[in-house]
Amino acid sequence: MGNIFSDRISDVPRSFIRDILKLALDQSIISFAGGMPNRDLFPVKEINAATNKLFAECGKDILQYSTSEGYRDLREWISARYKARKNIDVPPDNILITSGSQQGLDLLGKTFVNEGDDVVMEEPGYLGAIQAFSVYKTRFHPVPVDEAGIDTARLEQALSGYRIKLFYSAPNFQNPSGISYSGENRARVARLMEKTDTMLIEDDPYGELRFMGSDKPSFYRLLPHKTVMLGSFSKIVAPSFRIGWLVAEDEVMEKLAIAKQASDLHTNYFGQRVIFQYLKDNDIDAHIEKIRRAYGSQRDTMVSSIKEHFPGEIKYTRPEGGMFLWITLPEGLPAMEVFRRAIECKVAFVPGDPFYVNKKDVNTLRLNYSSVDEETIRTGIKRLGGVLKQLLGQKIKKSEIPSICNFKKK
Amino acid sequence: MGNIFSDRISDVPRSFIRDILKLALDQSIISFAGGMPNRDLFPVKEINAATNKLFAECGKDILQYSTSEGYRDLREWISARYKARKNIDVPPDNILITSGSQQGLDLLGKTFVNEGDDVVMEEPGYLGAIQAFSVYKTRFHPVPVDEAGIDTARLEQALSGYRIKLFYSAPNFQNPSGISYSGENRARVARLMEKTDTMLIEDDPYGELRFMGSDKPSFYRLLPHKTVMLGSFSKIVAPSFRIGWLVAEDEVMEKLAIAKQASDLHTNYFGQRVIFQYLKDNDIDAHIEKIRRAYGSQRDTMVSSIKEHFPGEIKYTRPEGGMFLWITLPEGLPAMEVFRRAIECKVAFVPGDPFYVNKKDVNTLRLNYSSVDEETIRTGIKRLGGVLKQLLGQKIKKSEIPSICNFKKK
Repeated sequence: MGNIFSDRISDVPRSFIRDILKLALDQSIISFAGGMPNRDLFPVKEINAATNKLFAECGKDILQYSTSEGYRDLREWISARYKARKNIDVPPDNILITSGSQQGLDLLGKTFVNEGDDVVMEEPGYLGAIQAFSVYKTRFHPVPVDEAGIDTARLEQALSGYRIKLFYSAPNFQNPSGISYSGENRARVARLMEKTDTMLIEDDPYGELRFMGSDKPSFYRLLPHKTVMLGSFSKIVAPSFRIGWLVAEDEVMEKLAIAKQASDLHTNYFGQRVIFQYLKDNDIDAHIEKIRRAYGSQRDTMVSSIKEHFPGEIKYTRPEGGMFLWITLPEGLPAMEVFRRAIECKVAFVPGDPFYVNKKDVNTLRLNYSSVDEETIRTGIKRLGGVLKQLLGQKIKKSEIPSICNFKKK
Repeated sequence: MGNIFSDRISDVPRSFIRDILKLALDQSIISFAGGMPNRDLFPVKEINAATNKLFAECGKDILQYSTSEGYRDLREWISARYKARKNIDVPPDNILITSGSQQGLDLLGKTFVNEGDDVVMEEPGYLGAIQAFSVYKTRFHPVPVDEAGIDTARLEQALSGYRIKLFYSAPNFQNPSGISYSGENRARVARLMEKTDTMLIEDDPYGELRFMGSDKPSFYRLLPHKTVMLGSFSKIVAPSFRIGWLVAEDEVMEKLAIAKQASDLHTNYFGQRVIFQYLKDNDIDAHIEKIRRAYGSQRDTMVSSIKEHFPGEIKYTRPEGGMFLWITLPEGLPAMEVFRRAIECKVAFVPGDPFYVNKKDVNTLRLNYSSVDEETIRTGIKRLGGVLKQLLGQKIKKSEIPSICNFKKK
């Protein structure tokens, strides 16, 4: 029956992470594979209170159909926050509520990408974006990112060599690597973009979660007419509501609203109302500060454990925010090989492969620190250090031999 | 900047209903234009109780990310209900929770339709399905439906003349017309389909809302390997959660799960948990019975008011369930002309145009009775009757001259 399917769906990579996460469900495994916020920080009581207030004050209203653009008060809140935090003017009419940022990416693919259209993707880049654009039979042009930002020479090559329709960028604490674009890097990118017809997608789910360094200017500020901005409540309130948003100028917004309506009529309205009520009745800045402090501390623990237990030749990023850290292994040691061994020793991560559009058996991997407590981070990193030393044929301190793991010293 | 958009989005009809509904927002207008359930029947107290129970028992869990397939307990509930209500075996693994039925349609378009693929659409047919499939550049083959069901001669022509990939069918109280396929009609359709590779989409958002007559066999029962079934909680619990589902066999489900993940990761989990808790703690059959009785009575009021006040040559359907009734005007009287006049007299409906894939200025229109109380139905239908008689140059009883409407008797 295979031939009845569309060509597009055959091109979408099956989610590697789904399979990996299934493995990591084993409760005895220490998992750095997730991409989830720390559940202990969810404002449970406050969201419950917001929900009760809504039922008491407008029970029927919050259960009915609503508009495709999203709840007006919530869009006004988002608009006001852009003004307050970044001094950007974003009228509520230019904000569309989406079913999570992931849907924003799907709507952009729907609205912009014809089969074979050229799209610049960060390398490594967000798996969900690769999947979303793959559906529309995109031709990807990967451009490397490192701790300074995107490789502007390679970006320029792509922009001048092809008619690049979209450039997907996550300039703040990118998933998977945790890296951010420097201010200078952003300015260079903006100069390159000015000469093109390319639309820049600024995906920013982690922007509020900076625990060191200083905020850098948004692309939406540098390139207002060529930037579509994505945001999300998943990391600052809670992900289960699947509520994100998309900022675009009028002409783009009109097309996106059509795509949105055809996709799911509107984002769940009950959740939009609950999130708004929560934001209205609580000090979101104080809540975000709590998350920042926790993730900052978890990140520090992971970095210091890596310093202590990983072989010296292994490189790692030092994120200033967000939830992820990126490991580069010595050449010739595929992360998948480490993964298989690590699983035997009850520690998991995501091998880098799914974050590349056209590479396999890469020597990079992603570690998540947001959803693991610090004691467990120390235990897990030590265990992973033992695995790495063993695979690299290095001497292992007795304390680093994971007791759970029965390999012999070489 | 127009040329930056995808071809597909240019082909999607701008929603006519959106514009119409904006007009109908005027509080002084009696609107039969909506497609909404009666908000007075929403189980507000029960849903509030379900929510509080969830927060008390598992606050953090209901706020975290979840799986693309959807909440397992909810899928098991749906499976058990198919067994109990229709004696159909649908394993939970063959159920995917979607962000409303509308997303089910989008996922089917994504998964099955290549540009130019042939799709049979009911005529008139559900606007949301026309929009969803238009995005994937479908070639539509409209096949008429009437009170006996779909025109099987025309269906056979389409199936034998083209390689029809999908056949979209809403056999129970279809939106917009309220008609249902008879048992005999379904059996004929099933026989025709058996010889083809066509996949039948059985969209059934209203199936539970039958207030007269008897249930007819589901296509999923008649053609299990060639049917994908869509369902929704929007009409039996509440629409604001945007929770629907899709039933398909293993091979199709695997592709749909990939499409789902690329579209929005997963359906809002908070809402899934709330709906499940509500279903678990309450007697849903008693609740549905309440909705049925109310809609049945509203439908009766609309039918008897039409009999009393509409010109005799105007035809109308007599739905056995659901939320809509379909009017056919005399040839040569476009519903849009009636609409413009009716709006002046403060009564609204949806002209038939958006429910056809390739017809304009049609002489049909949709009336919704579910979201209007009976007193208002009587007033609105009388008013609309006056408008119609005036447009047809007929004698109007003095009581039928809408006082709100300043036209002269001809």
